[in-house]
Amino acid sequence: MATTMNKQVLMANRPTGWVKESDFRIVEQPLPSAGDGEVLVRNLFLSLDPYMRGRMNASKSYAAGVELGAVMVGGTVGEVMESRNPAFKAGDIVVGSSGWQQYGVSDGKDLRKVARRNFPLSLYLGTVGMPGVTAWIGLNRIGQPKAKETVVVSAASGAVGSVVGQLAKRQGCRVVGIAGGALKCAYTMEDLGFDGCVDYKAGHIAHDLERETPDGIDIYFENVGGEVLEAVIPRLNSFARIPLCGLISDYNSTTARGIPDMRQFLIKRVKLQGFICSDTMELWPEALKQLGDLAENGTLKYRETIVEGIENAPKAFIGLFKGENFGKLVVKLA
Amino acid sequence: MATTMNKQVLMANRPTGWVKESDFRIVEQPLPSAGDGEVLVRNLFLSLDPYMRGRMNASKSYAAGVELGAVMVGGTVGEVMESRNPAFKAGDIVVGSSGWQQYGVSDGKDLRKVARRNFPLSLYLGTVGMPGVTAWIGLNRIGQPKAKETVVVSAASGAVGSVVGQLAKRQGCRVVGIAGGALKCAYTMEDLGFDGCVDYKAGHIAHDLERETPDGIDIYFENVGGEVLEAVIPRLNSFARIPLCGLISDYNSTTARGIPDMRQFLIKRVKLQGFICSDTMELWPEALKQLGDLAENGTLKYRETIVEGIENAPKAFIGLFKGENFGKLVVKLA
Repeated sequence: MATTMNKQVLMANRPTGWVKESDFRIVEQPLPSAGDGEVLVRNLFLSLDPYMRGRMNASKSYAAGVELGAVMVGGTVGEVMESRNPAFKAGDIVVGSSGWQQYGVSDGKDLRKVARRNFPLSLYLGTVGMPGVTAWIGLNRIGQPKAKETVVVSAASGAVGSVVGQLAKRQGCRVVGIAGGALKCAYTMEDLGFDGCVDYKAGHIAHDLERETPDGIDIYFENVGGEVLEAVIPRLNSFARIPLCGLISDYNSTTARGIPDMRQFLIKRVKLQGFICSDTMELWPEALKQLGDLAENGTLKYRETIVEGIENAPKAFIGLFKGENFGKLVVKLA
Repeated sequence: MATTMNKQVLMANRPTGWVKESDFRIVEQPLPSAGDGEVLVRNLFLSLDPYMRGRMNASKSYAAGVELGAVMVGGTVGEVMESRNPAFKAGDIVVGSSGWQQYGVSDGKDLRKVARRNFPLSLYLGTVGMPGVTAWIGLNRIGQPKAKETVVVSAASGAVGSVVGQLAKRQGCRVVGIAGGALKCAYTMEDLGFDGCVDYKAGHIAHDLERETPDGIDIYFENVGGEVLEAVIPRLNSFARIPLCGLISDYNSTTARGIPDMRQFLIKRVKLQGFICSDTMELWPEALKQLGDLAENGTLKYRETIVEGIENAPKAFIGLFKGENFGKLVVKLA
C-alpha cells in the first residue's frame, strides 16, 4: 500500500458555547494494521451530524463523551483494505463508526456490509443511514401519522427533516417544513414535494406558521428547539405528537431553553417523546430496507453538501450549527 | 315531596388568578320536575376537583367553560327520586354530573347506576370514580410501571395521587409521594404504604427528593407542575415516563410555568403525555371494576374531607388550591 499515514482530527479542547476550529487538532499517525480478527478500513465518507456537539461535552449525554486528545467520533462508510476477520474481505463496502480519520481498524462489531446500489455511497450516512432511520423511527413509531393530518418538521431540508417530510407525504399527510432561508424553503416544496414551508429567518415565524397550518399541527417532528418550538406549541391540535429528535438551536448554548407553557400539553393531551435511533436497533432493518428501495428507485429525494478532505471537517462541522450546509453534510475522504 | 326548592351555586363572575367566594352566587330555584324520558335526582354528594378551575375560564380548555350565571359543573352521586325513563327507577343510586346543586334533572345519558357496596357512596366520586380512573389510566396506560421501578407522584395524599401510589405499590414499584406538610406525608407512608414522601412545604424539595429516590425516577405522575416538576426533572432516569394529569400549582396563575430545560427530555428519552380520563371511556369499566373490588375488600385506602352543605362548596373549592383539604374533597348535600 502506498499510503503509510492516517490523517486524524482530534478533540484538542473541550468547547463551552460555540465550537471553534482551535478546539480540534489535525495529526498524522502511521497507518494502523489489522490484528487478529480485525479489519482495516479506508474511510470514503465521514458523516458530520449535530449530535457530535453533545459528545464534545464533559457531562454525560446518552453516550460517553469524547476524551480530550482522542479522535472525534463519527459515522463512516469505507472500503475494507485488509481483513483478518472471516466476516469481511478486501473490497467490501462497510458502514461503521470509524470517526474523523482516513483509516480505521475495527473488530467488525460496528461494521455493517452494504451493497453498491443506484445511489452514491455517501447516502449510507444520510437518507439510507442513521439520519434516515432516525426520521423513520420518530415519524412512524412516535408520530404515528394518519392520512390528512398536518406534519410539521423543523430543519426541513436537512438529512433527517427531508426524509420525515417525504415519508409523511407518502402517508397522505399535509407536510409543512421549517427551514432557514428562501432557498432551502423552495427546495422542500419544489424538490421534496412539501405542501408548505416557513423560513424562520424571515422574522415572523409564528405568523407564517399559522398561515401554513390552517388545520393546526398534529405531528411536530422536533429537530431544533428554541423559538421554533415556541411558535409551534400554540398551533398544536388535541392529541398532537412531538417526536423529540434534536435541539440544534440549543447545542452551543450555555443557557437551556424549555417549554414556556405546560398547560397546552395538558389541555391538548400532547405527547412529547425524546428518542435516539440506536435505542431500537430492531427497527433498523425494516427502515433501511424501505429507505434503500425508495432511494434507489428515485422516489426519495436527497441533497448533500460534500466537503473534500478530512482537514476541512472542523470548519464544516462548525457551519452545521449556523445552517451553512444544505442537505446532509458529509466529508469526502477518498 | 316536602322539599320544593333546589339550592344551587352559580358562577357569578369569571375569575382571573385566585378564585374568590364572590365569584359564586348561591340561589334557590323551584324544584325541577322530570319530563318525559327524564329522571329527577337528589344529589347526595358533590365532588370538588381542581379541573373545575379551568372551566371557570373563558378560554377554551378541553371542555367548554361554564357560562356566567350558570350552575357550576361537577360530578355528583345521588338517588333517583322520580323517573320517567325506563332505565331508572326511584331509589336507584346514580353517578352523574349534576353540578353544584341539590337536585338535578337528567335524560339519563350522563347517569351510571352504581351498587351500594361496603364503602361510602362518596367514594364513587373519588377512589372508585373519576379520580381513581384517572390514576389507573395515567399510571397503567402512560406510565406502564415495571416492578422495582421508582414511581413519584405529586399531590400524593389526594384523590388521584393516593390511588396512583397504591396501584404502583401493588405492581412492585418503589413509591415516593410529594405532599404539602408533615401530616400528609406521614399519611402516605403510614396509611397508604408509600416507601417515602417529600414535604414540598419544608423548603428543600430537590434535596429531599434526591434522598428519597436513590435510583432516580422512572415514572413521575404529574399533578401539580411548577417547582415540583423542576425538582423532578434532574432525577429522571433514561426512558422515564411522565403522565401529565394536572398542573394545580398553575391553575390560579396568570403567568404560565413550563419546562426550563428540554435537553433532559432528549438526552434521557423522556416521554411526557397529557391525558384526560374521558378520552378513553373504553377503559373505565375495567378500571372501575378493579378499583371497586380493592376498595370494598379494604386493600385500597382512602381519605376524604367532607364538607356539609352546598352553600359551603365555594369556600371549600378555594381551599383546594391551597391544599387545605386532606384526601378527596366532597360536599355532602343530603
